[in-house]
Amino acid sequence: MLQSGNSVLCVDNLQTGSVANIRHLIGHPDFRFLRQDILYLHTVSGPVDEICNLACAASPRQYQKDPVHTLRTCTEGVLNLLELAERKGARILQSSTSEVCGDPAVRLQNENYRSCVNTVGPRACYYEGKRAAETLFWEYGAHRGVQTRIAHIFNTYGPRMNPQDGRVVSNFVVQALLGQDLTVYGDGTQTRSFCFVDDLVEGLVRLMASDEQTPVNLGNPGEFTMLQLAELVRAKVFARTGGDVDLVFRPLSQYDPRQRRPDISLAARLLGWVPEVPLADGLDRVVDWFARRLAAPSHGFP
Amino acid sequence: MLQSGNSVLCVDNLQTGSVANIRHLIGHPDFRFLRQDILYLHTVSGPVDEICNLACAASPRQYQKDPVHTLRTCTEGVLNLLELAERKGARILQSSTSEVCGDPAVRLQNENYRSCVNTVGPRACYYEGKRAAETLFWEYGAHRGVQTRIAHIFNTYGPRMNPQDGRVVSNFVVQALLGQDLTVYGDGTQTRSFCFVDDLVEGLVRLMASDEQTPVNLGNPGEFTMLQLAELVRAKVFARTGGDVDLVFRPLSQYDPRQRRPDISLAARLLGWVPEVPLADGLDRVVDWFARRLAAPSHGFP
Repeated sequence: MLQSGNSVLCVDNLQTGSVANIRHLIGHPDFRFLRQDILYLHTVSGPVDEICNLACAASPRQYQKDPVHTLRTCTEGVLNLLELAERKGARILQSSTSEVCGDPAVRLQNENYRSCVNTVGPRACYYEGKRAAETLFWEYGAHRGVQTRIAHIFNTYGPRMNPQDGRVVSNFVVQALLGQDLTVYGDGTQTRSFCFVDDLVEGLVRLMASDEQTPVNLGNPGEFTMLQLAELVRAKVFARTGGDVDLVFRPLSQYDPRQRRPDISLAARLLGWVPEVPLADGLDRVVDWFARRLAAPSHGFP
Repeated sequence: MLQSGNSVLCVDNLQTGSVANIRHLIGHPDFRFLRQDILYLHTVSGPVDEICNLACAASPRQYQKDPVHTLRTCTEGVLNLLELAERKGARILQSSTSEVCGDPAVRLQNENYRSCVNTVGPRACYYEGKRAAETLFWEYGAHRGVQTRIAHIFNTYGPRMNPQDGRVVSNFVVQALLGQDLTVYGDGTQTRSFCFVDDLVEGLVRLMASDEQTPVNLGNPGEFTMLQLAELVRAKVFARTGGDVDLVFRPLSQYDPRQRRPDISLAARLLGWVPEVPLADGLDRVVDWFARRLAAPSHGFP
């Protein structure tokens, strides 16, 4: 955004984010950082053209720490941003999630797939919040003339992931680099699709620039079992460090979906967007980033 | 509640309710009325043993007037009540809705039926709000020790319905009494199940007194097509007034579910509850009530 000549206000409560991730931007004349929770963000000074709402802890380990805050972030926080967008005449994008669709009954999920989700359980604060946020976006778009955009984001990975997030890519990479066995939940045959962060950012930028107000899937349809991912990480780290690790198996959470794979034909048609970074290449960059982090004196990793 | 020796605080913003409905209680030494929106209800004086949350407009015509308020009632408003319950050590009951389950793929809906609902559309503000409220109830019940109860309420009817609600029972009865043709949407073969209000109240009282924290269906499993209901109302009004009316057909909303019928075996087992008032008897009381209302000098009906 800065390279395109925009002035950027970055708002983060640092609940899961880190100032280290934006340190290279501090001091840029067009960049401001505000440490604030969107629950309490009622206005900002000056004109606003676009609001990209990426707020809300996204990993179960993080969003389950304060479930009521998680849900309020997606309702009261989102309402604050929608009101801001309305007042400023800004277009606004909501980072929603494939999880609004629940555990899929169909193998390939397109945007018309209707959710099969339960209102109770440890993940409900997240996906029910995200669902309510989509409804609020729909209301502001359909009845108040706000230019709204909704991205259904599927699993994403890349450098600068929080190693405490409990995500499978960062878990495997950090474990392998530390010489620990890789923890596989269940039998490892459940699948996920992983989109490299640069591809996702490109998709978000294109969606914001489009005219599409209904939800658009953004993700990488390449599908991998957890076993395949583990073997890939293991091989990459072995090639880099010469250190080999085993797999250990732990019980699968009953709330863990069996499969999640995006149908991105809508994004391809509307936005001319398809992810370009193969998993093997993206993993190289993640392994490289975590290896350099771990080489630092106080990396703070588990 | 008053007859059982309780002290009752009735809180209503009168958005859809009417003081006329509680006029007979005004002056009772154990009854207080507070005109207040639960969005702004942060505390009440004195001890509180039980909170029964019936807030939120429930008919599409009413809840679509201010969809954002509808959703906020079910999130911020519900949070106010849950916090009140936690502070006062009160048990709290949420009047949720069969609509959290969306348009049913199975004929008979039990509590394990997972929703197939869309986050967008004119009804979403209502059912997504109710879904978020259930999640908040689950969090306060599972993690904060609050004694929560959730009723999945199916269609209910009875005296004191708001004739402006656009509900099929009151619509038909008022139209027939005014000598107007009964408006049937679609071909009238879609079905509904109707629970008489006295039966529902008994179910709510028993649920509140129980130990059950998961959602419990409350409704009458008797299933009627709209055509059957129209003929029943037409016959009852004809028997009473001698006036006959025809049916007129209008297009069905795409958002209108084809069918909604509760499986109440959980309520029967846990609460010993089954509805006792047959539709024909309940309709007699509704026809009688509306006939007396219409005979009043300024009934204000359409």
